[in-house]
Amino acid sequence: MSHLQQSFTVRFAYNVFFTEKLFDTANPLLADFFVQQASETRKKILVVIDSGVTETHPDLLTTINTYFAQHTDVVELVPDLLVIPGGEVAKNNPAFVEQIVDAVDRYGIDRHSYVVAIGGGSILDMVGYAAAISHRGIRHIRIPTTVLSQNDSGIGVKNSVNYRGKKNFLGTFAPPVAVFNDSDFLLTLDDRDWRAGISEAVKVALIKDARFFEWIEANAEALAARDMATMAYLIHRCAQMHLDHIAGGDPFEMGSSRPLDFGHWSAHKLEQLTNFELRHGEAVAIGIALDSLYSQQLGWLTGVDTDRILKTLRTLGFSLYQAMLDADKSAGIVKGLAEFREHLGGQLTIMLLEGIGKGVEVHEIDTDKVRQSIATLKEQEQSAQLV
Amino acid sequence: MSHLQQSFTVRFAYNVFFTEKLFDTANPLLADFFVQQASETRKKILVVIDSGVTETHPDLLTTINTYFAQHTDVVELVPDLLVIPGGEVAKNNPAFVEQIVDAVDRYGIDRHSYVVAIGGGSILDMVGYAAAISHRGIRHIRIPTTVLSQNDSGIGVKNSVNYRGKKNFLGTFAPPVAVFNDSDFLLTLDDRDWRAGISEAVKVALIKDARFFEWIEANAEALAARDMATMAYLIHRCAQMHLDHIAGGDPFEMGSSRPLDFGHWSAHKLEQLTNFELRHGEAVAIGIALDSLYSQQLGWLTGVDTDRILKTLRTLGFSLYQAMLDADKSAGIVKGLAEFREHLGGQLTIMLLEGIGKGVEVHEIDTDKVRQSIATLKEQEQSAQLV
Ligand SMILES: NC(=O)c1ccc[n+]([C@@H]2O[C@H](COP(=O)([O-])OP(=O)(O)OC[C@H]3O[C@@H](n4cnc5c(N)ncnc54)[C@H](O)[C@@H]3O)[C@@H](O)[C@H]2O)c1
Ligand SMILES: NC(=O)c1ccc[n+]([C@@H]2O[C@H](COP(=O)([O-])OP(=O)(O)OC[C@H]3O[C@@H](n4cnc5c(N)ncnc54)[C@H](O)[C@@H]3O)[C@@H](O)[C@H]2O)c1
Ligand SMILES: [Zn+2]
Ligand SMILES: [Zn+2]
Repeated sequence: MSHLQQSFTVRFAYNVFFTEKLFDTANPLLADFFVQQASETRKKILVVIDSGVTETHPDLLTTINTYFAQHTDVVELVPDLLVIPGGEVAKNNPAFVEQIVDAVDRYGIDRHSYVVAIGGGSILDMVGYAAAISHRGIRHIRIPTTVLSQNDSGIGVKNSVNYRGKKNFLGTFAPPVAVFNDSDFLLTLDDRDWRAGISEAVKVALIKDARFFEWIEANAEALAARDMATMAYLIHRCAQMHLDHIAGGDPFEMGSSRPLDFGHWSAHKLEQLTNFELRHGEAVAIGIALDSLYSQQLGWLTGVDTDRILKTLRTLGFSLYQAMLDADKSAGIVKGLAEFREHLGGQLTIMLLEGIGKGVEVHEIDTDKVRQSIATLKEQEQSAQLV
Repeated sequence: MSHLQQSFTVRFAYNVFFTEKLFDTANPLLADFFVQQASETRKKILVVIDSGVTETHPDLLTTINTYFAQHTDVVELVPDLLVIPGGEVAKNNPAFVEQIVDAVDRYGIDRHSYVVAIGGGSILDMVGYAAAISHRGIRHIRIPTTVLSQNDSGIGVKNSVNYRGKKNFLGTFAPPVAVFNDSDFLLTLDDRDWRAGISEAVKVALIKDARFFEWIEANAEALAARDMATMAYLIHRCAQMHLDHIAGGDPFEMGSSRPLDFGHWSAHKLEQLTNFELRHGEAVAIGIALDSLYSQQLGWLTGVDTDRILKTLRTLGFSLYQAMLDADKSAGIVKGLAEFREHLGGQLTIMLLEGIGKGVEVHEIDTDKVRQSIATLKEQEQSAQLV
């Protein structure tokens, strides 16, 4: 018989704001956002916070209550501020998703209300998922508190939780309605989390923007020394490139276009092999080193440029070798290639470098060359220890 | 400080095919669909089927296996065809969602594979949800097997499951990649399910298309007598209007625009009050009657037109009064107004009729007039029983 054709486009728009002291009563940014949202009624708001943030910012709960108490004409804060354990554990335990869904139910949070998540990428991923599936999607605001979440994970369109130990197995594409990056939160990060987020900036610079890489190279010591103004620029630039990539490509990854994932195929596997002892960003730094050395073996990247990349990563404080790289004569890492293909579906696609600032995709990887890259990293580490 | 603006549009497109004997080896429609999907690899397919369908079509599992066995060059059917209990129970028990997610994991169904659901609206809603959250959204094909799902629920963009007894509490907006309406499935429906789906057509006709209502009025007896050609036209026209409404409006209901839900505020409550003894479509028929009588009380609908609507519904076989309408002096039903508002968020918006084919939205409902409409339906039923 016949058929009917359906087609439509859906527009998504949100701002990523950069600020300090977001919940200071003198800072009108957040309240202004709510004022500008059209609505016949007061907006109900459910706030969920990373325990790692409340522990290091003991006044935060009071500050938030005070802030919203000043704006009761516009917003109605749900009396319960939910504090959830920060880090990967938030994504591993389905009870946390249920805790949020139950709060949505209990407080009558509807599709004209807001769920606000404050925390690292793990909390944002989990809360974003809970909001996305409740009532087919509740408006979601992200307040990222780590370098990684401010420049990458928290400003994009994805969320997820782990399922039976499988990383990011459940999730949706669901853009937030706004993101508020407050640099003050970064002051309390431990050094590893401060550093880890920087590797996403190195990644995007290496595949897209040689000048940005040169800037990172020149400022690597300042970044390692936790210079705040330098970090603010890095986050802003990295966030911009990340947003541009999403908008310019295939935001919901419906075709075969790929996210920005240079250095990530081995990183995912390394995270898993180390039982997530290694931070995502730490693993990405190693992944970048590996795939740069691989690109050099292909003759695509000069020795000088390869050295610049590795040196920059080391100056930032990253360790570029991890014992698990050698697991099962590196069968462990190499298995990551197949898993990476399956993760995104279709054929294998790996980003390499033709030069600094010039990413290029390949569909085959020679595992002997991967092992050679690992051997090089190991040698360099051993000789560094001898010095 | 500053802010970055993000905005992009995402395009969704799918076809709703009308056919017979979809899995007959002589019918190339489904296989052709897969051939036309660009891909470097064979497409993996996970099929999930409504037990009400397999029970009434005992050869179906074999037929499906035979069909796909003929097309192994293009598609790879997962060896396990999952049969899940049909009806609302499918949406009530989270174990069924897990069963599908686990099959996705076990068989390596990735974002380039397909999940195919065959069944009534309940199975389609549940499987669509499981597919939407797995790997952030697996391609989903719907094969609706009831009147309601072929003309309304199965061709749209929503999915959902119930959560702790709350209807449709969890869900997403996730368009299918294709819908295949096979009219042969309808032959085995019991009379109640056959009839129930017709009220969605009455609904959309009354608010949008007087000529379509006249057609239903003229064909009500043929529809009640299960004339297949008449039903085929009804489904096709209703599906078309439903698709147009989605594409022309706010597909993901992000603003305050509304779905096509004339007669639905009381229907949702009646379904709940009768513990889902009443089918959705049966409840909608009563809801249409109620809101037509209400429109008449406002002087918007003539007595003649109101009678035509009620008579058409009765000719179709619907009973327009249900004891639960009187629960707690109708406080039961009236509570449905508040729940309806909360369900979609924001202020109350109810569709009424200014005439046949002319829906109009109001934001206030007079509960005395609702009670008066209920009393009228009760009287009419009692006098009908006296005849
Ligand atoms: N959605 C995406 O697109 C995307 C992209 C990349 C990574 N991710 C996910 O992000 C997660 C990692 O996020 P992350 O790197 O932000 O780490 P994280 O969220 O796991 O947090 C790390 C630790 O820092 C603590 N913390 C958070 N903010 C703090 C602060 N201001 N001061 C002190 N401690 C603080 C947390 O409690 C936690 O213990 C992973 O689960 C990863 O899969 C998601
Ligand atoms: N997603 C949406 O936009 C949307 C819209 C409206 C309704 N719905 C949902 O749809 C559901 C109702 O769907 P429905 O009316 O199709 O009923 P249903 O799916 O509950 O099925 C009713 C019964 O018919 C059986 N059945 C299905 N196909 C059959 C066939 N061909 N022959 C014999 N028996 C068959 C089922 O096993 C079940 O017992 C509700 O959960 C409702 O919330 C969803
Ligand atoms: Zn990353
Ligand atoms: Zn309906």
